[in-house]
Amino acid sequence: MRVAQPGDLALFVSRDHKQFLVRLKPGESLHTHRGMLRFDDCIGGAWGRDVQSHLGYPFLILDPTTADLVRQIKRTTQIIFPKDVGYIVMKLSIQPGVTVVEAGTGSGGLTLALARIVGRTGRVISYETRPEMQHLARKNLEKVGLADCVEFKLKDVESGFDETDADALFLDVPEPSRYLAQAAQALRGGGCFGTLVPTVNQIVRLLGALEGQPFGMIEVEELMLRAYKTVSERLRPTDRMVAHTGYLLFARKIERSPDTLPGSLASAADEVTPGDSSLAGTE
Amino acid sequence: MRVAQPGDLALFVSRDHKQFLVRLKPGESLHTHRGMLRFDDCIGGAWGRDVQSHLGYPFLILDPTTADLVRQIKRTTQIIFPKDVGYIVMKLSIQPGVTVVEAGTGSGGLTLALARIVGRTGRVISYETRPEMQHLARKNLEKVGLADCVEFKLKDVESGFDETDADALFLDVPEPSRYLAQAAQALRGGGCFGTLVPTVNQIVRLLGALEGQPFGMIEVEELMLRAYKTVSERLRPTDRMVAHTGYLLFARKIERSPDTLPGSLASAADEVTPGDSSLAGTE
Amino acid sequence: MRVAQPGDLALFVSRDHKQFLVRLKPGESLHTHRGMLRFDDCIGGAWGRDVQSHLGYPFLILDPTTADLVRQIKRTTQIIFPKDVGYIVMKLSIQPGVTVVEAGTGSGGLTLALARIVGRTGRVISYETRPEMQHLARKNLEKVGLADCVEFKLKDVESGFDETDADALFLDVPEPSRYLAQAAQALRGGGCFGTLVPTVNQIVRLLGALEGQPFGMIEVEELMLRAYKTVSERLRPTDRMVAHTGYLLFARKIERSPDTLPGSLASAADEVTPGDSSLAGTE
Amino acid sequence: MRVAQPGDLALFVSRDHKQFLVRLKPGESLHTHRGMLRFDDCIGGAWGRDVQSHLGYPFLILDPTTADLVRQIKRTTQIIFPKDVGYIVMKLSIQPGVTVVEAGTGSGGLTLALARIVGRTGRVISYETRPEMQHLARKNLEKVGLADCVEFKLKDVESGFDETDADALFLDVPEPSRYLAQAAQALRGGGCFGTLVPTVNQIVRLLGALEGQPFGMIEVEELMLRAYKTVSERLRPTDRMVAHTGYLLFARKIERSPDTLPGSLASAADEVTPGDSSLAGTE
Repeated sequence: MRVAQPGDLALFVSRDHKQFLVRLKPGESLHTHRGMLRFDDCIGGAWGRDVQSHLGYPFLILDPTTADLVRQIKRTTQIIFPKDVGYIVMKLSIQPGVTVVEAGTGSGGLTLALARIVGRTGRVISYETRPEMQHLARKNLEKVGLADCVEFKLKDVESGFDETDADALFLDVPEPSRYLAQAAQALRGGGCFGTLVPTVNQIVRLLGALEGQPFGMIEVEELMLRAYKTVSERLRPTDRMVAHTGYLLFARKIERSPDTLPGSLASAADEVTPGDSSLAGTE
Repeated sequence: MRVAQPGDLALFVSRDHKQFLVRLKPGESLHTHRGMLRFDDCIGGAWGRDVQSHLGYPFLILDPTTADLVRQIKRTTQIIFPKDVGYIVMKLSIQPGVTVVEAGTGSGGLTLALARIVGRTGRVISYETRPEMQHLARKNLEKVGLADCVEFKLKDVESGFDETDADALFLDVPEPSRYLAQAAQALRGGGCFGTLVPTVNQIVRLLGALEGQPFGMIEVEELMLRAYKTVSERLRPTDRMVAHTGYLLFARKIERSPDTLPGSLASAADEVTPGDSSLAGTE
Repeated sequence: MRVAQPGDLALFVSRDHKQFLVRLKPGESLHTHRGMLRFDDCIGGAWGRDVQSHLGYPFLILDPTTADLVRQIKRTTQIIFPKDVGYIVMKLSIQPGVTVVEAGTGSGGLTLALARIVGRTGRVISYETRPEMQHLARKNLEKVGLADCVEFKLKDVESGFDETDADALFLDVPEPSRYLAQAAQALRGGGCFGTLVPTVNQIVRLLGALEGQPFGMIEVEELMLRAYKTVSERLRPTDRMVAHTGYLLFARKIERSPDTLPGSLASAADEVTPGDSSLAGTE
Repeated sequence: MRVAQPGDLALFVSRDHKQFLVRLKPGESLHTHRGMLRFDDCIGGAWGRDVQSHLGYPFLILDPTTADLVRQIKRTTQIIFPKDVGYIVMKLSIQPGVTVVEAGTGSGGLTLALARIVGRTGRVISYETRPEMQHLARKNLEKVGLADCVEFKLKDVESGFDETDADALFLDVPEPSRYLAQAAQALRGGGCFGTLVPTVNQIVRLLGALEGQPFGMIEVEELMLRAYKTVSERLRPTDRMVAHTGYLLFARKIERSPDTLPGSLASAADEVTPGDSSLAGTE
């Protein structure tokens, strides 16, 4: 049976729903509003059980999920939310063995999720221009034991990426419409492109800029997550929700035939809708 | 540079947005409404380019993403949508090396996504009671080259799962509230539980049934995906969207201390909201 | 030109977005965090202009809209939001001259909107069991000058409504499924029924209870309102939104023919969707 | 008891959910896919009952609600949906006695709802440039008996509205950002302005154009309506929904003080959220 190991990341949850993400270093402890938790009491024990603080308060000890990690990472920048990260993983076909490029690194939330899934059989390359941001992201990745799965690069992608055959590339920068040519050059044929921006103006500029670039199958989407109060007899959504995290834009790197009618591949989004079972291929 | 290999899965996209998912067997071809595509013309060539049918029509050839595969799989059952699959991957912490159990297999859409990410370093075990459904799922997984990453089991989980130390377990069955004890037994401490149901009545029953079971950190959520028409000068959502795919319920397997106040860990959903940066742990 | 009259309701808005809803009584004044506003400075002046507090701070003076009034009413109960009130007005066909019955009165938010539109040519009858609540609602309606448009009744509708020929009836009570027979008796043939409940469990019970009652054309709907940050160069939704105000259920009072197939008129909701222009009638 | 009168509008609903909106002229009849309905069989009878076609099929006869009328009007233009109409009524404070101006008339859907509520004690003035569109709208209003409540004007509002003291003004034109100065001139101080546009680009232009105009309290919002399948034991949203009808922009006509800081009143939208009970005014 899997037990908590020295050096494992642990998520402690108090009865009043406070959460603490820490690494279980032997001999160390966590100081909380409900008393001190000794890691030596946790190491070697099962996950999913209560451990007591020195004041006798129970804390649930859990191994954090990818969603927990993405949400709880130390950050100075806007987080990419788990709902968006999961969808990016699906749309960019992130899987063990692929080469995925990202700019910018930011606090490393997406980097972490990519590294977790790509693992050591593939490559995650992450560009950033701000040294202090790269430092924070590296520390965050170290904390979860994934720093050595990522190639951190301190470089402005305005002058281009070093890679030319990436399977996937994600732009998380203030104005991604400026880096589409660079992104195209970094991607292999058919490579998956994605970006996330907060405003509609950026999407408008992205769609305009994409017209001159070797991309097709363009999709713009947004995901809304609604949580429910988990009371069986009075089931209803929570009172408030996050209204907006960002607009997602996805595309594929393509080489257009000269005879291609302009725009004909520009967008499949509102034609090919999910759930159209008529799309099932024939062999 | 990555090129299309014999046996690779390919997605052909016509200018009128028809999509065809096929395996590139040497010597074979695909017959479409726009003429025949010879696979020998594709094998060895780059992805993301146009290939011509024998009638001269261009088709874009792409390597399908995980989202494409999940959506385009041959199915006789309701699909799990890529937006939900991605979020499940985040919340169940699916990654290379983990052991994940699923019931039922259905057409294998989620199985495929799980197998793609878990890879050969972990285990995907999938239960199904209907032989013909298991057969279809196995064929779907074979088509994408992932059948040997999955242990298919023909067994009713009413009598329990064979596993006792799974990292994650997902129920995609008509009435998941009936199998919570079995799910708990199959999961290790802290293991991640998930299920997807179409109706609120099922969520009501699930929340009721969870009260007597060793689960905590219960969350009920739904994801709404809204696509936009990708026209730079007239950006707006598409006219129609999928209103509902299902309600997601997530939980962690926990051992409650006897002194635990009833219900105190029952739900963290509306307390610990994404984006609360105050949650960042301290070490 | 319309100017502020003695006794008019006024909405004062400070530069820091504080809003104050008051009645302009001659000789009186409003004390705010930015100084005192003398009503004599406002009476006789135009709406939509700045008036200065005695500290020199500008306040915008506006005549409140129905949405403002519904939102800003003094209340001890959950408000019905303007988005829902507006839709109720459309679905219950509220217009001058109709007879509309409501239970319970609550703080009078919906009562106010109904009275505003029905006016003195029709009737608004509002039932409540709690005297203090009726008192609050009456004061709220008096403040906006509409108290004499409403017949307030202190009575439990369990024993039935006094009316038998109402055009519309709305239930805003804890468990509306208990009062469907009473509602049906109060409505004329074809009369419009509506209710708003926070939980799915209540909708489940309502749908069950409706089966034995003379109602048809049943619809269950929810409205989500998403606001945008009004910055031209960075247009995007606000960060957070109200996730849920309630589920709306609408129906029409009908007399079923004995030969009617059971359930055949139970619901038109997912068949007859708004925007189906094929529905346009022929004369 | 209210019964169907000669000349009343009636909505016939078949068991297979077809709807027919007609006027009950004595001696006439309606021909449907399920046989002929004689109006003389309906006139004098109650609403909400079944009437038989000459083939013996039952049709439910209802007096149409405002929502029915808005949805079922004959149209050659995009409809404004009941959810949006209802919210417009709340935000523009439409009520008996007010003066409301609208451009353009279109098929008259919004005109109809405004006329229904304003009644004969106020004024509804509707501008249109296309004679055939005005003709259609007039016929639609005649059908529901409200044509004499509306002043139809055939005039381009580019050169200005005739009114100068309107309580409310709504623009339903292709590019409302071009008519803001004209709208401001038509409104009294504090008057309510609204418009509905399908694209984000139009909202971006509107927000830009509003900066130079005497408007404040600007809000941009969208309403999403989700319907549920009305089955008690399997309650769930319908499979598909309308994803987008349009973005609503509301504002108030204001006179800014010269000392006003630029933009300080530009938007209250994300500051003053519905439900903030702290806003309740003091007298």
